[in-house]
Amino acid sequence: MKVLITGIDGYSGWPLALHLLGRGHEVVGIDNFVTRRRVKEVGSWSATPIPSFSSRQKAVRELLGKELGFYRGDLGDYDFVHSVLARETPDAIVHLAEQRSAPYSMIDVHHAVTTQVENLVGTLHLLYAIRDTCPKTHLVKMGTMGEYGTPNTDIPEGFFEVEFHGRKDYLPFPRQAGSWYHWSKVFDSGDVMFASKIFGIAATDVMQGVIYGIRTAEMTDRKLLTRFDFDETWGTALNRFIAQAVLGLPITAYGKGEQRRGFIALEDSMQSLRLAVENPAEPGEYRVLNQFDAAYSVNELADTTARVAKEFGLSPVIQHPPDPRVEAEQHYYNPLHERLITLGYRRTRELEEVVREIFHDLLHYRRRLEAKRHVVQPTVQWRSVDSRPALQAREPSPAPPLAPHGTGPSASEGSPTT
Amino acid sequence: MKVLITGIDGYSGWPLALHLLGRGHEVVGIDNFVTRRRVKEVGSWSATPIPSFSSRQKAVRELLGKELGFYRGDLGDYDFVHSVLARETPDAIVHLAEQRSAPYSMIDVHHAVTTQVENLVGTLHLLYAIRDTCPKTHLVKMGTMGEYGTPNTDIPEGFFEVEFHGRKDYLPFPRQAGSWYHWSKVFDSGDVMFASKIFGIAATDVMQGVIYGIRTAEMTDRKLLTRFDFDETWGTALNRFIAQAVLGLPITAYGKGEQRRGFIALEDSMQSLRLAVENPAEPGEYRVLNQFDAAYSVNELADTTARVAKEFGLSPVIQHPPDPRVEAEQHYYNPLHERLITLGYRRTRELEEVVREIFHDLLHYRRRLEAKRHVVQPTVQWRSVDSRPALQAREPSPAPPLAPHGTGPSASEGSPTT
Repeated sequence: MKVLITGIDGYSGWPLALHLLGRGHEVVGIDNFVTRRRVKEVGSWSATPIPSFSSRQKAVRELLGKELGFYRGDLGDYDFVHSVLARETPDAIVHLAEQRSAPYSMIDVHHAVTTQVENLVGTLHLLYAIRDTCPKTHLVKMGTMGEYGTPNTDIPEGFFEVEFHGRKDYLPFPRQAGSWYHWSKVFDSGDVMFASKIFGIAATDVMQGVIYGIRTAEMTDRKLLTRFDFDETWGTALNRFIAQAVLGLPITAYGKGEQRRGFIALEDSMQSLRLAVENPAEPGEYRVLNQFDAAYSVNELADTTARVAKEFGLSPVIQHPPDPRVEAEQHYYNPLHERLITLGYRRTRELEEVVREIFHDLLHYRRRLEAKRHVVQPTVQWRSVDSRPALQAREPSPAPPLAPHGTGPSASEGSPTT
Repeated sequence: MKVLITGIDGYSGWPLALHLLGRGHEVVGIDNFVTRRRVKEVGSWSATPIPSFSSRQKAVRELLGKELGFYRGDLGDYDFVHSVLARETPDAIVHLAEQRSAPYSMIDVHHAVTTQVENLVGTLHLLYAIRDTCPKTHLVKMGTMGEYGTPNTDIPEGFFEVEFHGRKDYLPFPRQAGSWYHWSKVFDSGDVMFASKIFGIAATDVMQGVIYGIRTAEMTDRKLLTRFDFDETWGTALNRFIAQAVLGLPITAYGKGEQRRGFIALEDSMQSLRLAVENPAEPGEYRVLNQFDAAYSVNELADTTARVAKEFGLSPVIQHPPDPRVEAEQHYYNPLHERLITLGYRRTRELEEVVREIFHDLLHYRRRLEAKRHVVQPTVQWRSVDSRPALQAREPSPAPPLAPHGTGPSASEGSPTT
């Protein structure tokens, strides 16, 4: 099959390209390199050095013996989107080209607007370009498990049977996102569902769990690694925990640490996306997959990190600063995820094993972490300015002990409100 | 109370200003006059001539003895929004400044994008400006009953008790909008709900039914009338039906005509918005009101129009061209609307009486309708280009008889696919 990946230069776009090439598919990509620029904007970089895209293409050619097509451009430019789709008419498009950071969207009004507008416009442009140039193309669109929030019921895969006042219908499960970014994904889901209905587009909407890992089987050389963000804005909680452990900083598990979310290894997320591509939705079908492997609490991630850290001679302290997010710190969480298994999904990686692998890689690139140690700890507040004083009153304590490696952080460096 | 109305120059913004002034409130408005420009864009105008805004202010001063504050500007400009709110710190903001036409949003990709982006950005800017300048201000945001679509169950006011796999929660009712415009309103609702939670904003989200009427009690002079759009893009179905009857065109009731929606008279919509303003939501409360008075089918609107038309010596024919929208033509429809009644809402106008009043006004301005008779009949297709041939095969028939007034339309003028 021919697959177009939007956001091919990104954290999951790149390993997906390698994975699909490895399975014999033809791959073409689009990127505008905005993630590279935005990680710089917050003063950070990827722990793994990311070569220029032409060097990445060269590495694929030399190491894997494959050709990787590429268009540099922006999904905000409809003529660009239209011309690429008209030229390529792919069998599937995996749409990953979105602003993907919740904290980035919460920085201020302009970051909120940028996030929602970019994500919405890119998706709308793709939907119309598919209608106008390749109406049979299967769209696999990256959503997030965060669209559902944390309801006090199980979470179905997209739709569920509603009974209200004695009558029944099969309706979309209510969305309760927790950031402007997560809401932008809800909006995209609405637009894709509607386009599927009016344009007859075959669509798979992937409610993606949090991904962890740097490597997939195809990354036989360090030149092929994907990016690994560890700063407050672009890194996931687990990424930051491991970076904190490597840097001798306290691990900052927000609040009670009992917030649970769905997770999946990078390798298994690529497996899942491939399964969606190889088993497309029907024309006019809007199919929702809850794409995660297992649910973990923040404390479980922190404990796993601390346990594996000891194997590397590190002894991080786990702190519980006030949660800067507006979220339930204790809640029920049981999303269903049966459709992927029906498509053939099998877990291939375990959390602890991947955490160990990340430690190996981060210790290799430790100097790149050291150079950016000031961007790891949280500073973005999600609440209104009015509620900040109440939060600041709850001082995180105790101060971290001197770290085993490098210069120990001061207590204020570890504070989430500085 | 001091009330800021965004979109004060529009169809409901203007009568709301007069209504609130009449009740002794202080009123300030914002508008960028984009509706005036966009109605021109589709080659139409308001049946009622709309004076310049300064003339409107003058008429209010001379006829009602009231002062009406006004800022010309765009909600897309955050500095403008921030400065107006900082200066005025109103008790309530009634946010009506959105692209409000579903057919306009369906014209092409650019109109889809414009609609969703403008509506989203304006609302986000207001939410942040409230947080930063007047956090106690009550936001009354205009949504639409169309956010819910037409589920096979009753429709609650925003939230309902969900039971799924034996566990319960109180969740937002699923949204299933039917145009890019209606989805933009769903998105706004999500953002307002979230801002209410994280910023503590007091918010009322009005799921507005379709409004009908030109006049309210305060419009004691023709200079004070609100706009009345009758073209395919900006006019409601009822507006177009009455305009068609006046022009001797066939009344075009799409499909089977059994699509039901919630409706409310302009006078009673203003009553409802005033009740929401005078009985604000609590800080941090996100309150949803289903704001309509009664549900009618398209056929009931067409029949009422035809019946009242006879009183004016008109005898319109009702046609059923294929429905250009993608919607159920027969469906269950029973939304609840109890909260407004609890706030004191009482119906003051009946459909037939208002239709009669509209006929009076449109006959007065008949030359303005005649000048734009070519824009009344539907042309925008909501489906994909691919499905058009199938629709075109279902020719609307029979051709309309010669109209009693003016030149009769040809059959092709009445076709929805030309």
